[in-house]
Amino acid sequence: MDDAAAIFDSGLGWLEADGPHADIVLSTRVRLARNLQGHPYVARASDGQREVICRTVAQAFEKTSMRRRAVLLRMTEMSERARKVLLERRLISREIAGLQTGPDGGVAVAIAGDGPVSVLINEEDHLRLQGLVGGLRVADAWSMVDRLDEELGRGLHFAYHHEFGYLTCCPTNVGTGLRASALLHLPGLVLTKEIARALQGISEVGLTFRGLHGEGSEVVGNFFQISNQTTLGQSEEDLVEHLTRIVTTVLEKERRARQVLLRDAGPVTEDKVWRAYGLLRHARALEYEELMNLLSGVRLGVSLQLLPSPSVYSLNRIMILSQAAHLEEAAGRVLTPPERRAHRAEYVRRVLATGNPPTSGSGG
Amino acid sequence: MDDAAAIFDSGLGWLEADGPHADIVLSTRVRLARNLQGHPYVARASDGQREVICRTVAQAFEKTSMRRRAVLLRMTEMSERARKVLLERRLISREIAGLQTGPDGGVAVAIAGDGPVSVLINEEDHLRLQGLVGGLRVADAWSMVDRLDEELGRGLHFAYHHEFGYLTCCPTNVGTGLRASALLHLPGLVLTKEIARALQGISEVGLTFRGLHGEGSEVVGNFFQISNQTTLGQSEEDLVEHLTRIVTTVLEKERRARQVLLRDAGPVTEDKVWRAYGLLRHARALEYEELMNLLSGVRLGVSLQLLPSPSVYSLNRIMILSQAAHLEEAAGRVLTPPERRAHRAEYVRRVLATGNPPTSGSGG
Repeated sequence: MDDAAAIFDSGLGWLEADGPHADIVLSTRVRLARNLQGHPYVARASDGQREVICRTVAQAFEKTSMRRRAVLLRMTEMSERARKVLLERRLISREIAGLQTGPDGGVAVAIAGDGPVSVLINEEDHLRLQGLVGGLRVADAWSMVDRLDEELGRGLHFAYHHEFGYLTCCPTNVGTGLRASALLHLPGLVLTKEIARALQGISEVGLTFRGLHGEGSEVVGNFFQISNQTTLGQSEEDLVEHLTRIVTTVLEKERRARQVLLRDAGPVTEDKVWRAYGLLRHARALEYEELMNLLSGVRLGVSLQLLPSPSVYSLNRIMILSQAAHLEEAAGRVLTPPERRAHRAEYVRRVLATGNPPTSGSGG
Repeated sequence: MDDAAAIFDSGLGWLEADGPHADIVLSTRVRLARNLQGHPYVARASDGQREVICRTVAQAFEKTSMRRRAVLLRMTEMSERARKVLLERRLISREIAGLQTGPDGGVAVAIAGDGPVSVLINEEDHLRLQGLVGGLRVADAWSMVDRLDEELGRGLHFAYHHEFGYLTCCPTNVGTGLRASALLHLPGLVLTKEIARALQGISEVGLTFRGLHGEGSEVVGNFFQISNQTTLGQSEEDLVEHLTRIVTTVLEKERRARQVLLRDAGPVTEDKVWRAYGLLRHARALEYEELMNLLSGVRLGVSLQLLPSPSVYSLNRIMILSQAAHLEEAAGRVLTPPERRAHRAEYVRRVLATGNPPTSGSGG
């Protein structure tokens, strides 16, 4: 499998929207932070030491059940656009995409071609194992990375303290090294102005929220990522169970808010979602932020059966594949901002016109 | 022909958009003010005197070539909604529609079933002859009312002063009694911010402008009515020629402004007109003012061939038939404001979906 194909086929499984509550919970992600004993943390490692870490992990990876379906991508060998594609696909961090972790840090990503699991090497920690699945499936995502963790652990010596647990570069990750998050679409709570209370409730039980694109990112299109704040002092099973329970509470609140919306403002809501659809269906230029807000309206409409189409799958695809780097990758060239807006609008129209989104990239 | 049918089939000829420059000049209207010698002006006439005037005019009308195709509608015998329909169709004034000319004033309208000419009896003047045609056709509209004026003049004695000309209730109408106006769509001049200068130019040559719905009405949807201010001291031919010339100048400016718009802001304009189309095509609730603004965008798009459809005819129909009284007439009942917005949006969607507007009213 060549790298470009790997990029374009990878990490999109969750878009299928086949998990539970996929109309509200777009995806669930679980990641484990691991470091190798006897090697300096990435931030303090020399280029040579990082290269050793990368090779060590890659060798261990070669002995796992994932090896056949996976490809190792070295960030320094990839174009900026390709790295941005991985970022937009939520497979790597903004820091890695921008090579801020060092121009020759040997950061690499091993991603399973058709699977929902990826491994980041030499990011903040030596290893970050990530599972990304559609719908609310914390336990599934956890068991995927847990299995990979176990397989890798056979060939690698992870830094572990009998009292604290797994040792990580950043203290907030010490312990299980597990961070689990769910990406939720909460327009009902936003429109009924219940969102502040719901988010406060989340904070009170040790969870936190942020926007679609991770730490520091703004909330757009009513998409919220909810994740655990601490990884210390609880078992992995507790963390998984806790997040599942809280997210379930939030999505039930969201469903109730939507019913309130339908009851108290049915025609207004119907008009709103159809207008969003009309704009997506016909606009000739779309900024990504506006697109996200319109997608939010359409997604709500589809979920409430006010709109007969498109599928949640189409909406998920548009959300990911109409980002800047994806559009440039599909066009095969750099796009000016007006071109980007035009390509984005064209891609959206194409998906909505057919009902079936193009299967590969955002087209020519 | 019964009255209801007469109302619903009448005065819509100009919507056909078959006149010159019909994409920019929606319609041309010419009206003549006439009064009967030996009868008091309407404002000073008793009910009985007005009834005499009405009968006198109606008898004369019966001898004209219009008689077979026309129907006499007495305002006091019509429902408020039916009068509003006539108002929305631009056949009568706001004052008549509201019966402000007296509860039993005997105001009547003779309208030709399939023709573009109507006669108002006992409005401000004893007679107002009106010709309303599509496109820029001042001379055509003038000759229509001129012929009717001549035919009626054979049986009626019009108040006429050898020096001033025709005498009218309001001094501004004395002379020819002729007011000619054209309804123009000027989004190009508005968007390029040239409109103020263009309108100033109009004032300087003795013309005036106002919104779609006549005196005192706001400009919405970039629709401007341009008309002559004085009727005294010029021949009818001069007035007709003058208005034609000025309107031609304005519409040429408008065409140039549109080309500037395409050249300097082509993609933005294209996006704008498609968005307007998208909203009209899918919205579930529309206020009339918003509708007018969206129609303006779509009309511009069609004129610039940025949009393949709908036809200017469809746009004209929507503009008239989606007004409140038309919607209620079609629904056969009073509509609450939210119902009205919903009916309006539904009618618009129906016209745009088929490309061919329903032929009778705004449907059920």
